[in-house]
Amino acid sequence: MNFSSRIKSVEASTIMELLTYAEEAKKQGKKVYYLNIGQPDIKTPENFFKAIANDKENVLEYALSEGLPELRKAIQKYYKEYDINFDIEDILILNGGSEALFFTMLTICNEGDNILVPEPFYSNYNSFANAVGVQIKPITTLAENGFHLPSKEEIVSKIDKNTRAILFSNPGNPTGVVYTKEEIKMISEIAKEHDLWIIADEVYREFVYEGEYTSLGNVKEVEDRVIIVDSVSKRYSACGARIGCLASKNKEFMGEILKLCQARLSVPTLEQVGAVELYKTPNSYLEEVNEEYRERRDVLYNELIQVPGVICKKPTGAFYIVAKLPVKSADDFVKWMLSDFEIDGETVMPCPAEGFYKTEGLGVDEIRLAYILNKEDLAKAAKILKEGLEAYLKLNK
Amino acid sequence: MNFSSRIKSVEASTIMELLTYAEEAKKQGKKVYYLNIGQPDIKTPENFFKAIANDKENVLEYALSEGLPELRKAIQKYYKEYDINFDIEDILILNGGSEALFFTMLTICNEGDNILVPEPFYSNYNSFANAVGVQIKPITTLAENGFHLPSKEEIVSKIDKNTRAILFSNPGNPTGVVYTKEEIKMISEIAKEHDLWIIADEVYREFVYEGEYTSLGNVKEVEDRVIIVDSVSKRYSACGARIGCLASKNKEFMGEILKLCQARLSVPTLEQVGAVELYKTPNSYLEEVNEEYRERRDVLYNELIQVPGVICKKPTGAFYIVAKLPVKSADDFVKWMLSDFEIDGETVMPCPAEGFYKTEGLGVDEIRLAYILNKEDLAKAAKILKEGLEAYLKLNK
Repeated sequence: MNFSSRIKSVEASTIMELLTYAEEAKKQGKKVYYLNIGQPDIKTPENFFKAIANDKENVLEYALSEGLPELRKAIQKYYKEYDINFDIEDILILNGGSEALFFTMLTICNEGDNILVPEPFYSNYNSFANAVGVQIKPITTLAENGFHLPSKEEIVSKIDKNTRAILFSNPGNPTGVVYTKEEIKMISEIAKEHDLWIIADEVYREFVYEGEYTSLGNVKEVEDRVIIVDSVSKRYSACGARIGCLASKNKEFMGEILKLCQARLSVPTLEQVGAVELYKTPNSYLEEVNEEYRERRDVLYNELIQVPGVICKKPTGAFYIVAKLPVKSADDFVKWMLSDFEIDGETVMPCPAEGFYKTEGLGVDEIRLAYILNKEDLAKAAKILKEGLEAYLKLNK
Repeated sequence: MNFSSRIKSVEASTIMELLTYAEEAKKQGKKVYYLNIGQPDIKTPENFFKAIANDKENVLEYALSEGLPELRKAIQKYYKEYDINFDIEDILILNGGSEALFFTMLTICNEGDNILVPEPFYSNYNSFANAVGVQIKPITTLAENGFHLPSKEEIVSKIDKNTRAILFSNPGNPTGVVYTKEEIKMISEIAKEHDLWIIADEVYREFVYEGEYTSLGNVKEVEDRVIIVDSVSKRYSACGARIGCLASKNKEFMGEILKLCQARLSVPTLEQVGAVELYKTPNSYLEEVNEEYRERRDVLYNELIQVPGVICKKPTGAFYIVAKLPVKSADDFVKWMLSDFEIDGETVMPCPAEGFYKTEGLGVDEIRLAYILNKEDLAKAAKILKEGLEAYLKLNK
């Protein structure tokens, strides 16, 4: 039977093969600390579940394609607290940040168009792009620079007549980078000068541990070309709700993308009812979560950096660290950790970072760590990782 | 700012303009019976809500991209009762039938490919297709024939080198047609002879009021090329759950489309927990619902057919009727019903059927009626519709 070349160009999740190594390790009685995925362990605010349990409906009807009005209002209010003033019509509810990104690509790109993305980047950007014939043009950033952006000239040199947008997550997944005000200004200038959209994936926006955060929502000069992708997944540890949103002051964009929202009818009604309550979560929740993540980051980073040859600047956002290791193949190192290493019957599973790069050959010596375990476990995991790395280096020198 | 030509080719929901007429009617104090949408009024089984309310989780995590194992098993069991034997791996959970269709198109079609679809058809087929550069080639069916398929020759004449699939809903939305065993056999033969996929949208499969139903899942000869699209939306009146599925014995297809499922991470966890219970609903629920719809259909059909010039065979499935009216413009008729007609302060809103046709000019004199009101209301609505139509014809002859 015939398959499309576009589906063939979408890569399968690369973590699967490694997960079979982890399964094998577990079978042998090892405990595996998983640092490979972005699934937080933080409690979801109870009001989410309560609101859904209390929602008495006889008939579970389609919601409006735009999203529940109460939820759009709650998000409008959320942004207002950051001094970002959206109309209700500037906000649409999507099935997670994923659908928001996917529909955005379809709305602004034809097949053969391209989008600039600082690499390493969230690998599903590439899956969505390939699925709809859009090319991602990577702007390479380096562990040595803490994954901050290269010069304006270097970025501009990547733009061609088919470039439609700059897309990035800020704070960054997988890097944990938080772009400076100057970087955001530079991106805005480039977008204006070259008539590009800016797709700002700000799903980690509360997870900033030092310094200032600059949202694209606050940059007035480009408000007609900014598309903010957001989600409750990380903010409220509600990944399984699959509630995301798009926010843009470009009314034509919102009108065009609404047609796709209408085609898929609606986002689950009950999850939206719950999400309204998430946005009412007191700030203290986020403050505590933030403090927790900051401490975890320090635990993990401080352990990691002790190994000679590891290149890693302390990230200031999200809940990830990407580190360059003095190894030939991070993939081989991860497999070795799962198959051949343990301390008291325990080992660690990092995520090889190669899948976050588009440029061939980059990231092969890097790993991404998600600090999504409680401090006690994370401290153990960090120690195991450090000692494992040291042992691996000794074996392979 | 730049938009893709593909998004420009997606049409906005055409019902919106008419809804403003309905709003206006309501403002003037009229009661409007809505027969224009496929949102059933039947009670959703309570166990759906109970299961969700009882699901105690601290952290609402991502579900597996494939779907909850319990739900895939429940669906496997559901099919087994119809003598369709799927492996668990043959079943994937999607965000409604909508996502199932959308991802299927991406998986089997490149830009420029086409899919044969009997028209009139569910208009969002066209939205999905346009969004990803796929052309729908209509196979026109007629009210006079109860919207049954034309000859094999006529269908085959539409196939060209870029044709990848035959897609149809059975029972049909908007027509209510249930294809005969012979028609299913013919489609299967065509697919085999011309190496096409068969995308069988069987979301209305329980809603069959007379005669036999033939599922593509039971046609052994084409099991490697059949993709069944399904959903809990209509079956269990749970449209707002947005739980759909794909089922196919073509393992390569399932492997390819899984990559898109992985890219969008997962379907909402709680809705899947609820959906597991839906599949445990006793058969008596569906039998009662079925009987209810059958009676409603009769009420509506018997009223409608009394108006001279109306062409409509009694549909045997789904909960829709498409009728050809002796009018120039069904759109004008619907607007007139909302603006200028009433009986005791009440009127009716049908859906003009033009949007269900791809061929220019077809369907302009047809309406679709969804019998989604209780019998008492529906009887009133049917009477108002009949009298309205008679009055409109008198005015416009």
